[in-house]
Amino acid sequence: MPVNRRFKLVRRPVGDPLPDDFDLVEEPLGDTPAGSFIVRNHFASLDPAQRGWMDDAPSYMPPIPLGDPVRATTVGVVHASGNPSFAPGQWVMGLNALEDYSLVAPGGFTSPIDVSQVDNPSRFLSALGAVGLTAYFGLLDTAKPVAGETLLVSGAAGAVGSMVGQLGKIVGCRTIGIAGGADKCRRLTEKYGFDVAIDYKGKSVDALAAEIAAAAPGGADIVFENVGGTVLDAELMNLAINARIVLCGLISEYNSVSKVGARNLWQVLVKRATVHGFLIADYVDRFAEGGAAMAQWLGEGRLRIDEDIQHGLEDAYPAFMRLFSGANTGKLILKIA
Amino acid sequence: MPVNRRFKLVRRPVGDPLPDDFDLVEEPLGDTPAGSFIVRNHFASLDPAQRGWMDDAPSYMPPIPLGDPVRATTVGVVHASGNPSFAPGQWVMGLNALEDYSLVAPGGFTSPIDVSQVDNPSRFLSALGAVGLTAYFGLLDTAKPVAGETLLVSGAAGAVGSMVGQLGKIVGCRTIGIAGGADKCRRLTEKYGFDVAIDYKGKSVDALAAEIAAAAPGGADIVFENVGGTVLDAELMNLAINARIVLCGLISEYNSVSKVGARNLWQVLVKRATVHGFLIADYVDRFAEGGAAMAQWLGEGRLRIDEDIQHGLEDAYPAFMRLFSGANTGKLILKIA
Repeated sequence: MPVNRRFKLVRRPVGDPLPDDFDLVEEPLGDTPAGSFIVRNHFASLDPAQRGWMDDAPSYMPPIPLGDPVRATTVGVVHASGNPSFAPGQWVMGLNALEDYSLVAPGGFTSPIDVSQVDNPSRFLSALGAVGLTAYFGLLDTAKPVAGETLLVSGAAGAVGSMVGQLGKIVGCRTIGIAGGADKCRRLTEKYGFDVAIDYKGKSVDALAAEIAAAAPGGADIVFENVGGTVLDAELMNLAINARIVLCGLISEYNSVSKVGARNLWQVLVKRATVHGFLIADYVDRFAEGGAAMAQWLGEGRLRIDEDIQHGLEDAYPAFMRLFSGANTGKLILKIA
Repeated sequence: MPVNRRFKLVRRPVGDPLPDDFDLVEEPLGDTPAGSFIVRNHFASLDPAQRGWMDDAPSYMPPIPLGDPVRATTVGVVHASGNPSFAPGQWVMGLNALEDYSLVAPGGFTSPIDVSQVDNPSRFLSALGAVGLTAYFGLLDTAKPVAGETLLVSGAAGAVGSMVGQLGKIVGCRTIGIAGGADKCRRLTEKYGFDVAIDYKGKSVDALAAEIAAAAPGGADIVFENVGGTVLDAELMNLAINARIVLCGLISEYNSVSKVGARNLWQVLVKRATVHGFLIADYVDRFAEGGAAMAQWLGEGRLRIDEDIQHGLEDAYPAFMRLFSGANTGKLILKIA
């Protein structure tokens, strides 16, 4: 009987998660009830959204119950099955948890995947996963970019941001990326094709706003927001009339006990801008459409996606914290097996 | 030769405007160049937007130059004319200033009005003016309310807010108004037909959010925002999925040196809400359409508009400050002549 290591949430974090908020527990792997199946997790996605699920606050998903393993999208192989639609050996992807084995009850959100399309099953957690499809639907369906428009992306070196920038170039936008540090900024222009890279580190809102203004004298037609806080404040000072802001993430705010907020929200009024709250979960029934487009661009070499693969459930905590320290260098993924 | 008293901006306010930021200057009335005409101002609109124009900051209009009279929409009568389209005695409305007489250069934004439609020419600064049309287009065109939806209005006892609430009832919404103090809240339900009135005064964000939640257990489908700051923070905790937020004003923030911001902006993401920055200036070419609808509802007794008419250019400063103290009891108007 295999042992199931499970990375559990045992205390709700206040601000930055601490090691003691979690516990790696070994449990015997149980039976497989009829209709259910067990997935051997190979890769798990580490995402800012997980931090939100750790709070006891209203969200689009219930909070992770204390004592449960941390919810995560995983890619793995069916290990044992009481469900005729999922034979052992089948690769699947679904909303499971940071653990060796996940029990998928009937009706759970888990689908078969065809790993022969890609060089590594981990791609289903990056370009063909929620991250890639967030960029795809968030930019193309929500903001509806038009060739020649100026696209401003925060968190531009991140997994979503780097793909948003590349998709922006594919549709003919001028792309300006904001990231933290010289290394990330170099990657923006050299690897992801951004026209301009702006380093936000160590800059006041006014200084950052001035730098954006120099890069986009007519303002940004589209802002793809992953960061929030003072970066958003600086962006808001640089909106074109009728700008569209896709609110995809606010990572700088998630661990803040006292939030910065959007202090320049009045610019949304002044510029008659529109802010669109975006959640990829609303697009589940269009994943095939988006995945096909992303797979094609990936195959044509028009899209590149970096993965930052960390190893081992025993290092789930430091791996997860790379999201917030800015250490990750691509879509953060935990290799479990 | 008449004397022209002009209420000039002589120093840019920091936070709350102070008496010394202004100066009431008497100047001789000049000639009327060909193509121009002079308006004897009878009524002037006092609006939060004027506070924004006093700052040296990017906005939809240039800042009021220091030494110029404070820009204002006025209703008056043509006093002298070098423009064949504007005969002396004609009632007009336009973007002029807080002064006895305004010189309107060719191409200025001033139009003839038919005061026989209304009981008092001041109506062109309330129900048939920017205020009434802001409610009309901001609610009906931007948020597109559907019968049965829940409409949450901040600044609900104010000029715009009280009309938004009444228009919401006309189209079949359930209306919840937020205002400051028991008197205003009584007006919301007794005069403007709000289904629920909530007093924000003396309440924390959490307490106010809980009170909104009790009144709107399913969340607000539409938020019509006039206030911003902590009131907006509480509203954001009570959005229905796919809520529409019309960002019409942020009066609590205009005089703040350190702005509160929208600290619960993440709820826009979680609830896939949309925030629409709204400016009535974008609807100038549809004013006739909106004015006709408002005049009809006004005539049928389905809309009531309160005007808070203050008297005399010499009291322009205390009159203007009623906007920010919450003392005004309707659309604030300065009677000049």
